Amino acid sequence: MPAQSSDLEDLFGRLRTVVDDRFTTSAAVREHHGRDQSYHPAKSPDAVAFPRNTEEVSTIVQLCSDVSMPVIAFGAGTSLEGHVAALHGGVCIDLSEMKEILSVNSADLDCRVEAGVTRKQLNYEVKDKGLFFPIDPGADASIGGMSATRASGTNAVLYGTMRDNVLGLTVVLSDGRIIRTGGRSRKSAAGYDLTRLFIGSEGTLGIITEVQVRLYGIPEAMSSAVCPFKTLDDAVNAVILIIQLGIPIARVELLDEVMMDAVNRYSDLEHPIRPTLFFEFHGSKQTVREQAESVGEIVKEYGGGDFAWATKAEQRNQLWQARHDAYYAALALRPGCEGWPTDICVPISRLAESILETKADIKRYGLLAPIVGHVGDGNYHLSILVNPDDESEMEAAKSLNDRMIARAIEMGGTCTGEHGIGYGKIESLRSESGDSVDVMRQIKRTLDPRNIMNPGKIF
Amino acid sequence: MPAQSSDLEDLFGRLRTVVDDRFTTSAAVREHHGRDQSYHPAKSPDAVAFPRNTEEVSTIVQLCSDVSMPVIAFGAGTSLEGHVAALHGGVCIDLSEMKEILSVNSADLDCRVEAGVTRKQLNYEVKDKGLFFPIDPGADASIGGMSATRASGTNAVLYGTMRDNVLGLTVVLSDGRIIRTGGRSRKSAAGYDLTRLFIGSEGTLGIITEVQVRLYGIPEAMSSAVCPFKTLDDAVNAVILIIQLGIPIARVELLDEVMMDAVNRYSDLEHPIRPTLFFEFHGSKQTVREQAESVGEIVKEYGGGDFAWATKAEQRNQLWQARHDAYYAALALRPGCEGWPTDICVPISRLAESILETKADIKRYGLLAPIVGHVGDGNYHLSILVNPDDESEMEAAKSLNDRMIARAIEMGGTCTGEHGIGYGKIESLRSESGDSVDVMRQIKRTLDPRNIMNPGKIF
Repeated sequence: MPAQSSDLEDLFGRLRTVVDDRFTTSAAVREHHGRDQSYHPAKSPDAVAFPRNTEEVSTIVQLCSDVSMPVIAFGAGTSLEGHVAALHGGVCIDLSEMKEILSVNSADLDCRVEAGVTRKQLNYEVKDKGLFFPIDPGADASIGGMSATRASGTNAVLYGTMRDNVLGLTVVLSDGRIIRTGGRSRKSAAGYDLTRLFIGSEGTLGIITEVQVRLYGIPEAMSSAVCPFKTLDDAVNAVILIIQLGIPIARVELLDEVMMDAVNRYSDLEHPIRPTLFFEFHGSKQTVREQAESVGEIVKEYGGGDFAWATKAEQRNQLWQARHDAYYAALALRPGCEGWPTDICVPISRLAESILETKADIKRYGLLAPIVGHVGDGNYHLSILVNPDDESEMEAAKSLNDRMIARAIEMGGTCTGEHGIGYGKIESLRSESGDSVDVMRQIKRTLDPRNIMNPGKIF
Repeated sequence: MPAQSSDLEDLFGRLRTVVDDRFTTSAAVREHHGRDQSYHPAKSPDAVAFPRNTEEVSTIVQLCSDVSMPVIAFGAGTSLEGHVAALHGGVCIDLSEMKEILSVNSADLDCRVEAGVTRKQLNYEVKDKGLFFPIDPGADASIGGMSATRASGTNAVLYGTMRDNVLGLTVVLSDGRIIRTGGRSRKSAAGYDLTRLFIGSEGTLGIITEVQVRLYGIPEAMSSAVCPFKTLDDAVNAVILIIQLGIPIARVELLDEVMMDAVNRYSDLEHPIRPTLFFEFHGSKQTVREQAESVGEIVKEYGGGDFAWATKAEQRNQLWQARHDAYYAALALRPGCEGWPTDICVPISRLAESILETKADIKRYGLLAPIVGHVGDGNYHLSILVNPDDESEMEAAKSLNDRMIARAIEMGGTCTGEHGIGYGKIESLRSESGDSVDVMRQIKRTLDPRNIMNPGKIF
């Protein structure tokens, strides 16, 4: 970062010549850009620029690189591990003015979008062509941000994560170079998989400005169901069997009884206050029926209650709304608190054990922490409801999270299924990945020798 | 490489202390290890070592690194772009004695294998558990080699490629460091995706010694069918529609009339000598029936002939044998020739155009070049039958391949769908990936500063 404030003014002057009035040092705008949706302390950048194309991003990065000024990419600000906090100051590059859908190829089921396009915008714009983009992390995140954090969400059990659904990228490197990775073919063995290297790199290796993503035909039939269980164990074991049998379910989400209570209160619903699974099936009418029957039998075997069914779009949306509101419903359980979202993922065979031990920990620490999980992937979250000013409570929450993560790693799982490392899980990454973190660092150093790309994250 | 032959003898002495009699400088063994299954000139390594575990590989690499001696990993020798040729001399590390299946987790549908385990061995050993490993490049390649080249094959349209089916790796780096990447959970957002970086790196960044792969339950029902078409165009257009409609077909392979003739002659079969599609459907009895019906309708629409069906394992194997023998059948069309296998992949909407222009080129150049394709992925191969001693023929083959590749890149496709770059497609990689090759080089340099890992490949 420039040593003198006059240097800073010089830089800002040059940046203004690039993006004109789409550059600001306003305190309110800066504050908004240093904060994500987590409990992690925010840190405002020194300025925010709103480029409109890849070339502008490149020029901004070059100018910042010349004076070793950090640059932090900002999408929709919905990350959860402090990814956008300007820990070492710097210029925030907000990509929200890059919202163009550059091409849609119905015949090949793919499209190219600018990084600031959000998933809801994309879905809205391809709907008329009978297409959709399945990755749904809940928040209306940007496609660039979802790529940078390797996001996934409720549909991943059938459609995979961003890793599986990005065909190629345009990336601005730390010296301003613009590269294109990948292509449009469904597979390739051409050289190193740079696309996958940038997916999940959290803005530390380059800034993603365009993304080529896969689309899918909207299924002929979609059907959703909600089913309460007597015990959490039963609900999770039903899911394990469904996955082990290879039933191609599109979504299967678990909410524990605490979360169901929160959802009922928040959305004025009357679901039984019990561990509950939300299902969704996609396919032809016949395959959806067949899947639902198979799942119905398994659910019965594990003492699941009656399915509440929804086949029409409106009903389905209403049903899923409860799931989508879960995070906010949880926060509303304790007004004024903040949410500490945890995010482990384990091999499916260890899922019941992992959740039950975590439930016991929650009780032991006396914390309020509803559970919601993409259980088909072995991934689940607590929303630990904390008062950040209460030191002992924060310590308890940290212990709870640390213990979850340690158990997950011991089970062959991961400290983060989909939220990423940011600056919240740097130690966890080391616990999980050991010496391979040194290899990540080597790559970081060679591609960003001045350490200006979102410094302080991942490492 | 060591300058003096006495240095070489010193190194060999030290290597013998590591692997004892599993080290040889025999000319016959060396020759075998410098050659793959392609037309590319072979180049023997200076010695071949057969380590039995990761630690031995690490020690060998360290000793070679100390004297800047190249190391070339060798799996089953079935690569097709000269991957194993010791272009700068060096020690070949043959992993075929690392054949242990380290663990099979039926409950999580995954397993960990040593790099030398072949796909047929793996399938044989997990069959009794009702499991299978779907990636099938034709040859009985090793899992380590398939990872290193990002292999795929006939089942990729449903199950994906090695990229999608490897959960984690053990890798020996150029300085002998041993790292583990990935884990056993189905998804993770923990740091850079090193697993995907090593998959497809062709031994140029490290030597893969263990692989954690996904397995699948053997489907309840499998059904295969063969169907001839009047024209190539019709056959390809039928495939395009099947893919665009999202029918989850497991395999769909195209053989042109030249290849069908070759297969008939080679295996004494009586298929019509016409462009022909081979299909396979996996799923429950009901979904397989449904898929077959949908495909049947599409095929009829495009004037496809009657399906020859096979549902029993033995019939299916017999039917697919014809497909699996295609490369050898092609070679037999012109005894004494060598095969020049091409390998482009294009977006599915451009597939018919790509194949038809290629057919016209084959005719124009007067070459014999049967076509076989994993057309569901937009990927197809010619087996150009060449006499390597005939310069003008080799030039014509090169022009044909260059034109195919140039068109594929122009269409948004790739110069290699599954064979990789080796030393055969270095220029094509640059045409396709432009400046991003410089980024690949930067990564190569930082992880292999002495350029000892399979030098001369990819770059």
